[in-house]
Order: sequence, then structure tokens, then C-alpha cells
Amino acid sequence: MIKTQTLLTFFKETRAHTETICAPLQTEDYVVQPIVDVSPPKWHLGHTTWFFEEFILKHHKTGYTIFSDDFAFVFNSYYESIGKRVIRTDRGNLSRPTVSQVYAYRNYVTEALIELLEEGIDEEITKLLTIGIHHEKQHQELLLTDIKYILGNNPLMPVYDGQFSENIIETQPQKWISITEGIYEIGHEGPDFCYDNELGRHKVYLHEFEISNKLVTNADYIAFIEAGGYQTPLLWHAEAWDWVQTQKITAPLYWHLIDGEWHQYTLKGLQKINPEAPLSHISYFEAFAYAQWKDMRLPTEFEWEVAQSHFNWGQRWEWTESAYLPYPGYKKEPGALGEYNGKFMVNQKVLRGGSVATPIQHTRPTYRNFFQTGLRWQYTGIRLVK
Amino acid sequence: MIKTQTLLTFFKETRAHTETICAPLQTEDYVVQPIVDVSPPKWHLGHTTWFFEEFILKHHKTGYTIFSDDFAFVFNSYYESIGKRVIRTDRGNLSRPTVSQVYAYRNYVTEALIELLEEGIDEEITKLLTIGIHHEKQHQELLLTDIKYILGNNPLMPVYDGQFSENIIETQPQKWISITEGIYEIGHEGPDFCYDNELGRHKVYLHEFEISNKLVTNADYIAFIEAGGYQTPLLWHAEAWDWVQTQKITAPLYWHLIDGEWHQYTLKGLQKINPEAPLSHISYFEAFAYAQWKDMRLPTEFEWEVAQSHFNWGQRWEWTESAYLPYPGYKKEPGALGEYNGKFMVNQKVLRGGSVATPIQHTRPTYRNFFQTGLRWQYTGIRLVK
Amino acid sequence: MIKTQTLLTFFKETRAHTETICAPLQTEDYVVQPIVDVSPPKWHLGHTTWFFEEFILKHHKTGYTIFSDDFAFVFNSYYESIGKRVIRTDRGNLSRPTVSQVYAYRNYVTEALIELLEEGIDEEITKLLTIGIHHEKQHQELLLTDIKYILGNNPLMPVYDGQFSENIIETQPQKWISITEGIYEIGHEGPDFCYDNELGRHKVYLHEFEISNKLVTNADYIAFIEAGGYQTPLLWHAEAWDWVQTQKITAPLYWHLIDGEWHQYTLKGLQKINPEAPLSHISYFEAFAYAQWKDMRLPTEFEWEVAQSHFNWGQRWEWTESAYLPYPGYKKEPGALGEYNGKFMVNQKVLRGGSVATPIQHTRPTYRNFFQTGLRWQYTGIRLVK
Amino acid sequence: MIKTQTLLTFFKETRAHTETICAPLQTEDYVVQPIVDVSPPKWHLGHTTWFFEEFILKHHKTGYTIFSDDFAFVFNSYYESIGKRVIRTDRGNLSRPTVSQVYAYRNYVTEALIELLEEGIDEEITKLLTIGIHHEKQHQELLLTDIKYILGNNPLMPVYDGQFSENIIETQPQKWISITEGIYEIGHEGPDFCYDNELGRHKVYLHEFEISNKLVTNADYIAFIEAGGYQTPLLWHAEAWDWVQTQKITAPLYWHLIDGEWHQYTLKGLQKINPEAPLSHISYFEAFAYAQWKDMRLPTEFEWEVAQSHFNWGQRWEWTESAYLPYPGYKKEPGALGEYNGKFMVNQKVLRGGSVATPIQHTRPTYRNFFQTGLRWQYTGIRLVK
Repeated sequence: MIKTQTLLTFFKETRAHTETICAPLQTEDYVVQPIVDVSPPKWHLGHTTWFFEEFILKHHKTGYTIFSDDFAFVFNSYYESIGKRVIRTDRGNLSRPTVSQVYAYRNYVTEALIELLEEGIDEEITKLLTIGIHHEKQHQELLLTDIKYILGNNPLMPVYDGQFSENIIETQPQKWISITEGIYEIGHEGPDFCYDNELGRHKVYLHEFEISNKLVTNADYIAFIEAGGYQTPLLWHAEAWDWVQTQKITAPLYWHLIDGEWHQYTLKGLQKINPEAPLSHISYFEAFAYAQWKDMRLPTEFEWEVAQSHFNWGQRWEWTESAYLPYPGYKKEPGALGEYNGKFMVNQKVLRGGSVATPIQHTRPTYRNFFQTGLRWQYTGIRLVK
Repeated sequence: MIKTQTLLTFFKETRAHTETICAPLQTEDYVVQPIVDVSPPKWHLGHTTWFFEEFILKHHKTGYTIFSDDFAFVFNSYYESIGKRVIRTDRGNLSRPTVSQVYAYRNYVTEALIELLEEGIDEEITKLLTIGIHHEKQHQELLLTDIKYILGNNPLMPVYDGQFSENIIETQPQKWISITEGIYEIGHEGPDFCYDNELGRHKVYLHEFEISNKLVTNADYIAFIEAGGYQTPLLWHAEAWDWVQTQKITAPLYWHLIDGEWHQYTLKGLQKINPEAPLSHISYFEAFAYAQWKDMRLPTEFEWEVAQSHFNWGQRWEWTESAYLPYPGYKKEPGALGEYNGKFMVNQKVLRGGSVATPIQHTRPTYRNFFQTGLRWQYTGIRLVK
Repeated sequence: MIKTQTLLTFFKETRAHTETICAPLQTEDYVVQPIVDVSPPKWHLGHTTWFFEEFILKHHKTGYTIFSDDFAFVFNSYYESIGKRVIRTDRGNLSRPTVSQVYAYRNYVTEALIELLEEGIDEEITKLLTIGIHHEKQHQELLLTDIKYILGNNPLMPVYDGQFSENIIETQPQKWISITEGIYEIGHEGPDFCYDNELGRHKVYLHEFEISNKLVTNADYIAFIEAGGYQTPLLWHAEAWDWVQTQKITAPLYWHLIDGEWHQYTLKGLQKINPEAPLSHISYFEAFAYAQWKDMRLPTEFEWEVAQSHFNWGQRWEWTESAYLPYPGYKKEPGALGEYNGKFMVNQKVLRGGSVATPIQHTRPTYRNFFQTGLRWQYTGIRLVK
Repeated sequence: MIKTQTLLTFFKETRAHTETICAPLQTEDYVVQPIVDVSPPKWHLGHTTWFFEEFILKHHKTGYTIFSDDFAFVFNSYYESIGKRVIRTDRGNLSRPTVSQVYAYRNYVTEALIELLEEGIDEEITKLLTIGIHHEKQHQELLLTDIKYILGNNPLMPVYDGQFSENIIETQPQKWISITEGIYEIGHEGPDFCYDNELGRHKVYLHEFEISNKLVTNADYIAFIEAGGYQTPLLWHAEAWDWVQTQKITAPLYWHLIDGEWHQYTLKGLQKINPEAPLSHISYFEAFAYAQWKDMRLPTEFEWEVAQSHFNWGQRWEWTESAYLPYPGYKKEPGALGEYNGKFMVNQKVLRGGSVATPIQHTRPTYRNFFQTGLRWQYTGIRLVK
């Protein structure tokens, strides 16, 4: 029962934290979807709630009544195996359910789950609930970066929170950490929560490498821009070069050159670039080109995992050279929960670490984040290997 | 001064009516843009206000202070000659300014204009104000049809107004009104307001024709559907046939076949089709194909204007066979106001009449509405000629 | 029988002329389709042949054997009502049938038709044959302009015919021809061949206008370019301005600015622009913008037809302001031949006149050509009205 | 000098073999490009020739005169660092240079290179020439599969070579080859030619696995189709499922269901499927879904390389689960040759083996082929691991 008590607290805190993230928003901010990769905050609120209702309450709480059939339809995300979802690109077209209806839905489901927890739950529900909580934590990160995009894409560039600090300067001197050749173990072990994609733990053979103890800074990257990095095809992958040309990319996302000086939109509003701060909002394509220009490279996810205890991390999701693939012996969950991770294991890159948007308890040395190679709205950064 | 008093009343009523249309909306409904042809209600509120500020207050009211430079930027529509507009497809991405800020903007501009009017205005301002009022009335129609699209596109299909009647049955017997061959005069005359595209009045030569005293009904159109109209290429223009195939069109907009029975989304919510009611929400392409199938045709806009006094109209905008072109001697206004009508005079069709969404005072026998041939979100209908 | 003899000669000459147009081509030139509006020369050869086989030989020649079922499939164009056509965009993907097979097909059908003609033909076949010959003449013009596009789009810019003169200078002084107000008759009359879209002859009422006795020259148009015409939104239709921006249009098709001097690709190869020569290869959008800039306008097709006997024409297809619409009383042919003209009567503009690519016998004062407003690969020009 | 003699023979044989592949073609077949991934045969002939001219003759043969500046422009492929290339999608629009001009170009360059070789060449030229020969061998494979696409995409489905056998039945009984856990060496070693992407040789740690001694057959795959594999979203990656839906994929490329029986287009023409023959023309997406359905998986490229000596291979390029990434210590060539491989190392999958279209001498156990996950026009196949 102590465990249930802990879980109850964890659950309540998680639900409350999602709403704290939304506290500075206006009703209108909950609704829009400027690009397909960003979801309306309203949708995050509803979808994380739907997850608890669909996978726990509907099947495991006696006498539970679905809040609304329509909501189940609207807030399913990508679970193809469960009914017809609302096409992802359509999310920003939906004014209903309203924000207050979505909050009512949240409260209804939160209360029902607390009730269920207080009655006591078995192993299976504990497992599902734990996944549900981590699922919501994962969405908290997306929620914050989606909010940043929604506000930063607006010509009025409104402030989200005048106190929010995205950029913590790393003051330590640059060093190269050397890792020796040999067999290493990779992947999660122990009883704590992890996603299926962090299992099973397995051996890899690494050759010797040196990895930086610091992230690339804005000043480093401005040097790349000023050296003509965005105009030099040999630094880029073929697909990346097409992307640069087609999208007319000339700087990281949220950067604006105003009267000859670089600025960036932050959650505090538009600010001058701090050259010492760690670079952010670059795609894998840009991370790779930058490393090429430095005549270095990005780490693999295995190198990163082996070396990570030697440096501080957690400000930026760090692009790795590794494609997002199953570990040996990977088995996805049966049924709809199996759609969580495995179905994205193609044409994406692994990111390691965690960012200023990542909730506490939602990052660990074995955590594998993943995105397509051209995406930039996360707090992504670069750590070099030579 | 009496005239100014009338204008003042007209202005106030118009401003108030726009807000009345929005009264049933939730804040979220003001924000979204499901398709490019539909604008968020918030944008209509702001844009009609910006028009008065940009063309009147800014230049003609002593000491007037612009409400916000940003708003001028956000609420310009298509006036290429005045600064950089927000790209039309981006309107639905903007959560700010908020709805309450937009209402504050409205009130600020309305008050300033009332003040200006009470001081007394000259000919030029009278003319600009009259255009501004009619501009807002024109947007009232779009506002209502855009609201219908926003709600009707939502899988929850919310009710806008349980009392709103879109479909008034024409009970008179079908007759064919015969118009004799000869020279007729077309276009607006007299001192009342009209748009530049209704001028100059000119002569046309019409051959004899017969025009129906009734609109095509839902029952008429269901017969076309059931006869395979949407599967018969010879009934359609080549471009229309591509449209039918690509868009997978099989019925008018808002029609749903539920358990073998046709329903339509209305502002009262989803309802069974009333076979006697006038057909609505069809494109020009469909209107033409239907007429082909009946071995009849659509009227030209000139035929319509000449015959219109012989039948009741005003429920549906009626597609004509006429392309939207300038009348002989047409001169567009100099400067930005010249962008109002003339720039759309290519690849669009004229509609005549007016609809259940058209505000009183905003329709007359010479009024020329115009849309692209595939659009269906207006209350469009069919009147046949043989 | 004399009539049949004349028709036989007309038929033979027409078939031979198509092949003469192709004489300068290499085998490879027959195959490609650089843009969707251009068809491979091989396809024109096959399609004009298929027309005679499908509409005459198959039904009217005893014992006739189809040359190849596959060819019927490949060379149908847009006759939706006759079997499944090869999608228009796919024409340039087909290496087979080979050019020599297509010529064998031509000879087979030509011989069979000559045989049929020599046996004597009835009214119906005479009518079909006449249409088939005019159909082939119409394709001769497209064939030549498509060849120009295929060669002119190639970075090697090969010469088609060193003697081919596209540009005949009009040396007469500029005059304005004045036409008085009144009722005029429009459309074809008499026993000679015309297309269904030139019928029926009907009355129109024209207001007074003045029309130029000369086409706009290259020098005239260079003045428009140099005055910033392509950068002035108020001169353009809204749809045209999008076209200019999206397609990055800055000059007529085939124009190249080389070392500060305008050149154009012609069938003689790349040549310096002759300022005195009539402008060509402009879209309706450009024609309209140019007229706006001159504070004049384009003629309607009715004005053009009424005034045409007062000036020389035939070098350029002349854009009119008229949309391509049916004349009063227009009836399209029953069956597949009805797809010839009527199905294009939406969102296109009428051109009048004829061009250096138009075969003799294929133009007349009542001929109505039509294209979409952005197309430029025909020898199109501008005649102004004020 | 003996080495030079061998190289000379190798060079001559390679040049001759390319032309042998083209021997069954009609001139028209050389020109077309039905999809962007396929190049016209003419282009392959020119491009492989240009490679020798650009990288060897131009810089290393005294007194050599470029055949044509235009050809250098037209036949560059993706070497962004050398001048402006013809956009890849435009290749099929070019009728000139003609096929016979391209052959003249080939002969000119071949002769010049033979002359150079007979004069004797140094180490650097030897290296460049070797790359050039292997480059042409690589294009021979593409040439044949592009020809198959050009002919197989044509509704006439012409025969390329009535003797060409694509499908050799594997008659051995199915066995599972077991490989034990441990450290293995991967990558090319020794003096023979390899591409830069096969270097440097390095260690990997493999866990135990079993791999099939046979490829998946047509009968195996028909079972997957009949079990509804293409309609079961849980078997597919999310991106793959979109691909299946959007492209309406229901069978391998070149498969046609005719009167209830599966046929496939082969270089011998259209034939009934042989159930015993190895499956071909499937994408990575399909290979993965099939393996999921069998509850097995694809090998990694390392597993394949370690196990390959235990089974016969060479009929099908075999999809692996490995993303195409640089080996540890990979260094791309400096300058334009560095564009050969490295720039494609993102969002592609490694294929191992070789196919019936692969020239002798152009495959080896360490060879790494790579394609995007949706491509199917190569002779791709599936080998399972459990």
C-alpha cells in the first residue's frame, strides 16, 4: 500500500504539473496548430487524459462511465488499432470541445483514477498507470515546446513567462573526455521505470573516442554561419542540402537578424543572442553539417551512454549519429500499447540527454528520444566527438 | 446633418449586428481556420475594424492614435499596396491578439468614429464611411458562413442557434417566365450605394429565354445523384470532372448519408434533408452538371437581372453562367480601395441574388457576387433557364 | 464526286503537312513531354490518326481491322466517354510505340481512308472526315508550338529550322480604329466548316470603342518591364500576382537576359530581341497587366470580331477579355464528339486571330481559340483597346 | 605494366558491357524518365563517360579537348561542387543530345582513355580509373533496372530479352544457420578495390542469432497478402502505413492480378508468378512488415556479413535492418569524389548481397548498397532472422 500511496502522489503531481505549464496561456493559445508537428495545448490536455480513460478506467474500474464518446474519438492520437482517429493535421481546426470542457474531462478522469487508486490496484493496473504517468510527462515536454512554437510563430511574439530561463551558461573549461576501446553494456537495467525501447540490455563494442565536456555554444555556431556554412554543399547530406534550399534555412529556428544583430525568440520573449549560451533549435541536418565543418562528428548513442557520467547534461536534447532502431531482442508490447515506440523506428535519429523542457523524473542515462532529421522545435543541441 | 444622423445609426447598427452574429460563439470558435477560404471570426472582427481605422481615422481624425501597429499588420487582408500582410493561410495559426483584445480594438475604433461623425463629416469621409459599412455587411455574410464551416467541419457538429432557419420552402407552383428578345439596360443607377463593379450602366442584347420562378429543390437534386450524375463525365466540364475525382465529391457540402438517409448539417445542427427545401451548398461545377442533366442551362447574369422582378429571390446566392468581368467603361477606384473588386475579375463566376446569410441592405437587383467555380461554403443554389 | 475529290486532296495534304512539320526532328524529339501542357510529337501523330480510325474507319469501313488495340488505348486524349485513356501527364513516359510504329499506323489509316474515299462517302462520313481534317490542322499548330517548347526548354537550345520566321514587323503607322455603338451579329454563318463553338450566330450590343491597328511590340513591352511592371501588384489580378510570385515570372517565355541584353529562343535558335517585332509568348495575366499599365484594356471577343476587317491579323493569337463561354443557343454534339469544345467552357479566355504556327485554312474571323490564363507556349500577343 | 594491361582489359570490357545492356533498346527507350528515381538510359551512357572525362582526361591527359561543354553540363549528376547540374527531375525532358551523339561522346572518351592507358599511368590515375570503372559497373545495374521500369511501366509491356532469367529457384531445404555471440570484424580488408563506405574495418559485438539459408519466396509472400498483411496497421511502421495508404500499395512492384491469378512483369515480358521463385521488388517497408507478420526480423548488415559465407547469395539485394551510417573512422574522399557515398548517409537502409542485375566483379561480402525505404525498382528481397 505504501507503493500505491507513492504512485498516487506521483499521479497527482503529474496531473497538476501539466496544468501549471498551461497557467500562463490565454484560451486562444490552447487551440491553434501552426505546423503539423505541433499539437494544440488543448489536445495535449485531452489526449493524456484519454490515455488513462482508454487503457485503465474503461476496462478496470467497475461502473465507470465514459465521459464522452466524442472525446475518445477526438483525443486518440496515433493508435491505429483503436478506432478512427482525427487526422493529425486536422487538430488545429477543432474549436470544440472547448478548453473548459477539456478541463472538466481532466477533472472527471483524475477523480475517477484517484478513487480507483484509493480502492487499491493490482500489478497490471500499476504498470498501466505508471506508463500513463510517464506518457503524460513526455507530453509535458511537447506541450511546452509546442507552446513556444505557437507563441514564437506569432508576429506579436508574446511572452510566456518572464522568469523562464532556457539558457544556462556552461562555465567549465572545454575538455575532451577519452573513452577506451572495449565491450560496454547498453540499455536500461533495474526495477525503475523505462520504456520498452531502452530494453534489452546488451553488449556493444566501442572503439576509442574523445567527447566534449561542453555543448556547442551560440558563438561557435555563429562562426559556422559567418564562414558560409549554409552555403557550402559539401558539408551537408544530399537530403539536407535539399532541405536547406527548399526551406531557405539560414539560421536556427527562432533566430532573427535585426539591424545586423542576432536575436532569438525565447519563452521570455525576443532577446539578443547570448554568445556563451548553448546553441538550441537546430535540426540533425545542421548538427551534422556543423560537425563536418569542425572536422569532427556527433557521438553515437552508445558512445553517449557510456560517456555521459563524465559530463553534465540535461539542458539540450543532444543529436546523435545513431538511427533509431530496436535493440537486439527488442519486443514491443502486444496490442495498442505496442504502437508507442516501435512503429517510429525508421528514418529517425536518436537524441540523448534531456532539455530545459523535460520534466524531472523523465530523463535518465538510457532514455532514447527520437525525431525526424529536419525537426527543430525541441531544445536540441550539439556535443562533438573527435 | 440629417444624413449624418442616419449614417451614424446605420454605422452603429452594423457594428452591433456583427457582434450579434458572434454572440453564440465560444472563445475557441473565433480562432480556427479549417480551410483557406474560411477566415477565423476573430479575423473578421479585426479586419472590418482595421478598414475604418486605416482608411478613415488614420487620415481624417485629428489627434487619432493607432490602437496598435501590430493589429494593422495582422488584420490587413489583401491590400497588397498597404504594407506586408499576414499570409491568408496563416490566419488560423494566430492565437494572439486574443478575442477580448479584438473586441477592445473594435470598441476603440467604433467610439472614435462616432466621435468623428458627431463632429460632422465631409463628402469624402461620408463616401469612405459608407464603403466601410458595406464592407462590414459583406463580411457579416462571410462571418456567418465561415462559422457554419467551422462548426460543421467539427466531428461534434455543434449547434449554432436552434432557431436559425436556413431553408424556407417555396410553395408556389413551378412556372416558366418568358422574357422577350431585345435591348436591355444593365447595372446600377441612382444615388443609392453600390460597388464599383455594378457600374457603369450599359446596354445588352438578349435573345428570348424562359426562366424558372423557383429554385431547384433537394428532391430535384437527389434525383440527379440517384441517376448517377456524379459518375457521368459527359455532364461535367473537364476541370469539374477532375475536381469530382480528386476531391471525391458525391453530394453537396454538409450532406451525410446516414443509414441510407440524407442528412445535412445546418446552423440548428444535423438534420434530415427536407426534400421540398431549396438545394444549397453546391459549386458552380455541380450547378452546371445538374443543368446539363436536365437539358437546360443556368441564366447569364444579364438574363437574371432582367427577369428578377418576376420571381422571389434572396434565399440563395444563384450561380450564373457569366464569368465575373468588368462592365464596359468600368473604372476601378484609385489606390488601395481599387483592390476591392477589380483584382478578382478573372476565373470566377458571378452569383446573383442573396442568401439567408446576407444582411438586410446588402443585396439589390444589380449586386454582383463572385466566387471560384469549386467553392461551396456559401448558401448557393440553382435557378434553371430553358 | 467533285466534292469528294476536293476532300481527298484536302485530306492528303493535311496528312502530309503534319509529317512535314516533323521532318526536322530527331527520333528523340518525338518522345519527351517537358510540361503537362505540351504533348510529345509522337503523340500528336498517333492521336490525329486514332481520331480517323475511331470515329470513321471502325464504324464505317467494311472489313476494316483495327491497327492495334493498344494504340487506341494510348492515343485517346480526353474522350472520357471512350474507354480508359492514358493519363495526360504520363504521355512523356512512354517510349513505345516507337516513332516508326506510329508512322506505320499513320500510313495504314491514311491508306484505308483514301480507299474509303475512293469508294465514295455519304453525308455523315463527309461531316466526320471534315471534322477529322480540321482536328488534325488544329493539332498541327500545337505540334509546332510543342516542338518549340521541347527544343527551347533544352539547355542546348537546338535550331529547328534556320529559315523559320516567327516575327514579321508591322510597318504601318499606329492608328486607332473607331467602331460605333450598336447591335452587331456575331458567330459563323454560311456553308463553310466551323466548330460548334462558333454557332449560333446571334446579336450583341456594343458600346463605342477604339482598337489599335497594330500589335504591341517587344519595345513596348520592354518599357513595361523596365518600369517595374512585374513588381507592381496593383497592375495584376490577385490570381495573377500569385502566379508571378510563385513562378518567379519576370519576362515573356523564351526570353533570356544575357549580358544585359534581351534574347529570345526562336525556331531559328537563340536570337537577340528585335524591338520592332510583335511581342509573343505572354499569358493573359501579362496581357491584362500590360493593358492596365497603359491605362487601356483588351478587346472583348465581340469587339475583335466586329473590328477585325479593319486591321491585319494572323501573326499572333490575340488574348481577349472574354471568358470562353457558350453562345446563346449553343448545342454540343451528341456523344464523344461533344467533348470537343463544350467541356472546356470554364475558367479559360478566348483568343482571336491566328498565329505563324496556324495552318492555312484553319483560321477565320469567327474562330474561337481558348487557353487557361497562365499559359504562354502559344504565339500569343496583345492588341489594345481604349 | 602488366597491371596497366589488366586495367585496360577491365576498362574495355566494362565500356563494352554497358553497350551490350543497351543493345535490345529502341532509340526512344533511351530518352524517357517515368519516375524521378529512374534515369534515362541515354543519361547513364553519358554520365559514366563524363565521369572519366571530368576526373581523369580533363586534368591528366595532355592536349585533351573536352568533347562538348554542354555535355559536361547535362551529364553531371549530383556533384554539387562541380558547376550547375541539370535538375534530376528534368532528365527525362531532354531530347538532345541525341543517342547517337552520346555514343559518339562515349567513343571519343573511350579512345582517349585507351590512349592514355597505353602511354602508361601513375598511381593516382590508376586509382581514379579504377573508381571510374566501378562507377560504371554500379551504373550498369541501375541501367538494367531503369530499363525494366521504363518498359514495365508502359501499358504495352514490351519484352526486353526473351532469354533473360530473373528468377532462379533455390531448391535446397530451409535451414536456420546459427551464429554464436561474440566479437566480429566488419568491413573490407586487403588490396582489392572497395568503396570508401566499406572502410575502416572494425569490431562489433553480436548476440546469438539464427539466419535463414533461403530467401523468402513468392508463395511465402502471397500468404502474407492473403492474410491481409497490407490491411493490418500494427505490422507496419507509422511512416510505412502512410506510404501504403497514400500510394495504394497492395502487392510488390510489377505484380498484376489478372483474372484472379498473380502475374509479374519481367524482362521476358508479363508472366505468371512462379510460387517457388524468390520474391522481388519489395520496399524495406514491406520487408519489415512481412518479418513482423512472421514474428521474425531482418538481419542487421553486421549479422549478414558475418553469416554470409554459410549461404548462397547474389540473386537479390537483401534489405537489412541497418541504417546506412559511416563506419567508425570513416573518412570521405576530399573534393568532389567525396560526394560519392557519404552524402547519402541519412534516412536510407543498407542492402547486402547483389542481384541478377549486378555485374560480375561488382559485389563482395562487404559491399554496402543503400536505398530509401520506399523504393522498389531494384531486385530487392528478404532473408529472415529469428
